[in-house]
Amino acid sequence: MSVESKSFVEELPPKSDLSEWYVRLILRAEIADYFEPVGGMMVIRPYGYTMWEHMVRLLDERFKATGHTNAYFPLFVPESLLKKEAEHVEGFAPEVAWVTEAGGEKLQERLAIRPTSESVVGMMYSKWVQSWRDLPVLINLWNSVVRWEKRTRFFLRTTEFLWQEGHTAHRDEADALAEVLRILDIYADFVETDLAIPVIKGVKSAAEKFAGADTTYTIEALMPDGLALQSGTSHHLGQNFARAFNITFQDLDGERKHVWTTSWGLSTRTVGAMIMVHGDDSGLILPPHVAPYQVVILPVRDEPPVRAFVEEVRAALPPTVRATVDWSDKRLGWKRSEWELKGVPLRLEVGAREVAARRVDMVRRDDPQRQRQSVPCGELAEAIPSTLETIQRDLLARARAAMEANTRLADSYEQLKQTIETRRGFVLAGWCGDPACEAAIKAETGATVRCIPLGDLGNVPGRCVYDGKPSSRRAVFARAY
Amino acid sequence: MSVESKSFVEELPPKSDLSEWYVRLILRAEIADYFEPVGGMMVIRPYGYTMWEHMVRLLDERFKATGHTNAYFPLFVPESLLKKEAEHVEGFAPEVAWVTEAGGEKLQERLAIRPTSESVVGMMYSKWVQSWRDLPVLINLWNSVVRWEKRTRFFLRTTEFLWQEGHTAHRDEADALAEVLRILDIYADFVETDLAIPVIKGVKSAAEKFAGADTTYTIEALMPDGLALQSGTSHHLGQNFARAFNITFQDLDGERKHVWTTSWGLSTRTVGAMIMVHGDDSGLILPPHVAPYQVVILPVRDEPPVRAFVEEVRAALPPTVRATVDWSDKRLGWKRSEWELKGVPLRLEVGAREVAARRVDMVRRDDPQRQRQSVPCGELAEAIPSTLETIQRDLLARARAAMEANTRLADSYEQLKQTIETRRGFVLAGWCGDPACEAAIKAETGATVRCIPLGDLGNVPGRCVYDGKPSSRRAVFARAY
Repeated sequence: MSVESKSFVEELPPKSDLSEWYVRLILRAEIADYFEPVGGMMVIRPYGYTMWEHMVRLLDERFKATGHTNAYFPLFVPESLLKKEAEHVEGFAPEVAWVTEAGGEKLQERLAIRPTSESVVGMMYSKWVQSWRDLPVLINLWNSVVRWEKRTRFFLRTTEFLWQEGHTAHRDEADALAEVLRILDIYADFVETDLAIPVIKGVKSAAEKFAGADTTYTIEALMPDGLALQSGTSHHLGQNFARAFNITFQDLDGERKHVWTTSWGLSTRTVGAMIMVHGDDSGLILPPHVAPYQVVILPVRDEPPVRAFVEEVRAALPPTVRATVDWSDKRLGWKRSEWELKGVPLRLEVGAREVAARRVDMVRRDDPQRQRQSVPCGELAEAIPSTLETIQRDLLARARAAMEANTRLADSYEQLKQTIETRRGFVLAGWCGDPACEAAIKAETGATVRCIPLGDLGNVPGRCVYDGKPSSRRAVFARAY
Repeated sequence: MSVESKSFVEELPPKSDLSEWYVRLILRAEIADYFEPVGGMMVIRPYGYTMWEHMVRLLDERFKATGHTNAYFPLFVPESLLKKEAEHVEGFAPEVAWVTEAGGEKLQERLAIRPTSESVVGMMYSKWVQSWRDLPVLINLWNSVVRWEKRTRFFLRTTEFLWQEGHTAHRDEADALAEVLRILDIYADFVETDLAIPVIKGVKSAAEKFAGADTTYTIEALMPDGLALQSGTSHHLGQNFARAFNITFQDLDGERKHVWTTSWGLSTRTVGAMIMVHGDDSGLILPPHVAPYQVVILPVRDEPPVRAFVEEVRAALPPTVRATVDWSDKRLGWKRSEWELKGVPLRLEVGAREVAARRVDMVRRDDPQRQRQSVPCGELAEAIPSTLETIQRDLLARARAAMEANTRLADSYEQLKQTIETRRGFVLAGWCGDPACEAAIKAETGATVRCIPLGDLGNVPGRCVYDGKPSSRRAVFARAY
């Protein structure tokens, strides 16, 4: 919408002022807007929602390729149902929004707007699952949930957010655990491959796990201000919900058994992560896989030969490339700034000289120097997709280098404390597993156990950084969003 | 899920018992289930939700091809905002579910769960639209809405339903009206081409229009019991919401003007229409364009040569064909009934004889005789897609013939009354446009003005069937869901 009168460059603070930069960028690039009448709610505008649509598509393909199907479950969770799993309700009740009147009458029972759907899903699965033949049940839901938060921030923490929540039921624990880890791998692959954000995969501590889970697995990303962002979680629910909702099946041996369930979710929060991780002082830098437009063509003048050549250029691009042309009557310099702000990965400029030479000037958004590369029209069909893939890989490599540079070892508590206070970032340190040590570290430094990393990163025995007791694995500590 | 112990054929009533057939079919084919704790709510199970996913895709492609983009607006509408357009709130307030408590506290203002989003959209558009350059705004939302209904029925009327709601803003009335009609055409094309349901396009009477609209356009379908089903509506909102929410822009002439807005919606109700219109005594008959599986392959025996040949058959199908193989250990007859109940358009049977001849037996679900056609493996790549398209067209032709056979003229009120009472269906009759005649006809026959049809169907001058006054166009009367 019209903003020519405003100067983007002037109004966007430098990225070093991260929180202000983040909010102003989201507003100016028309990614989202405040919904002022209700605190903590936002409107996701077309430019932001289109990113989410690409994310949905890329994640949904992975879910379907691994045998999951989608369904829709009701928005309302009656209070009695929410209360069935004790730890679950304790975790969520303080954040619930309640419907108490409907159709002109007071309701007999309050209805929670779903903060998550384990309860309604559990109730239905207890009806649907009868035999070992019915297992596994592999269902995913794309919906929105409401959690009444006091402190909110675009995408990272909002009263209502969009997400997917998977809910599966299995015959035995091994099958459930395999599912939990399969989804964790899908999340990590999606966030790294498509959002170009490196993550650490790991297990949550008991204090940080999902309310009602036996174990929560997580992917943790690092933001440019050194704060961690939990970016997706996959929960091994054991038989907790199966018992609470009486989800049982007749096994091959004739016995009636409780199923094992999992749940897992990834939300619009990752849109926020993507903005923070890649952007710069000029605005957004979008990974090509999820950019609403991957290419913007800027004609230097609106003249017939330029029009004709731009049409040729468009036609030369493979149909899978998402391209747009800016024919508006704004000044070229303004258009450049605007499309940089919008983070379009590749800009193609076409002037009289380019038309004559049948070439375009190609500029990568992620190149701080904005070097121009002159590409013959005949080479675009190859050059554009391959450059987009290069940008995608380079963004991940750059983000990975930043994460690695901000991941530090701490051999002593003093070192952990000092690192967290002066540099933030991820700190790897031994932890004995005692919740008391974890709580003390949190109280004294503000850092929580983000996870105990899977694989080599965590698999290092040593001593607890807090009480010196033996620790079999290392934990990642960080302050977090 | 396991149901082998149950006999579908026995349990499904004949389609002539339409309401019972409809509910039992939806439950048995696992399309949806009751959500018992909250009256009028349902769970859309994977088989039903996959149909909706195809519908979403096919409709969304049409919206995007005509310049619309998607966005997300909040679930909550504060009471004061809902009240801004007087007619709108009067229409929706009785059906609203209200959130009154959240985060452990009583709210200062009640929040409606959106019954539709004109109010929240209007508020944001008043902020976003400033200049003629910002117009048109062409935004669509895919979400769910809540309307507290007393009498509910799977898909046709539920307390919560899924839909899309489009909201556009325009510079002048002509542009807004063009949008309203463009969308009406998209709806009609989608419902006829993809759901194979013929519709009548028309204008609603003042009594039947959307609360807050100047004019409502509709597509009306006819169900097998002779009741009409409103299947999609496109509203010309005039400047009503622009005034209520102060959505203004500076025009080229420098003047500040109110925009013209439209809104339009199509919901999961059409899933119900599709089930009713096409199904038969054996269960569902799904139009290929939206069938979760278009082809089911039934191996007669699970033997290595059959396995190998079935793999060849699968590989011979184009990747766009959605096919599945039923390798379960159930009896062949049971499998046939199950997949007929599920409405899969084409069944391919493969036994030892077919393997030897390198052919498959193809059976069309929509063929009452279930004739077998023997197709050589080498011809499948052509035969399957073309047969699917034939089925799609035949379903529409059959449904159109049924609608035409149940569309009758009435020259007198007696004739209208008798037709509605004995045969139901659509009745075309002159109507002077007086709401008093409309109300009297409704009170005496239960039939409402479904619409005044566009084009030749409505464009017949005559006399009002009720009071004999001149009528410039004919109306369609029917009892309706």
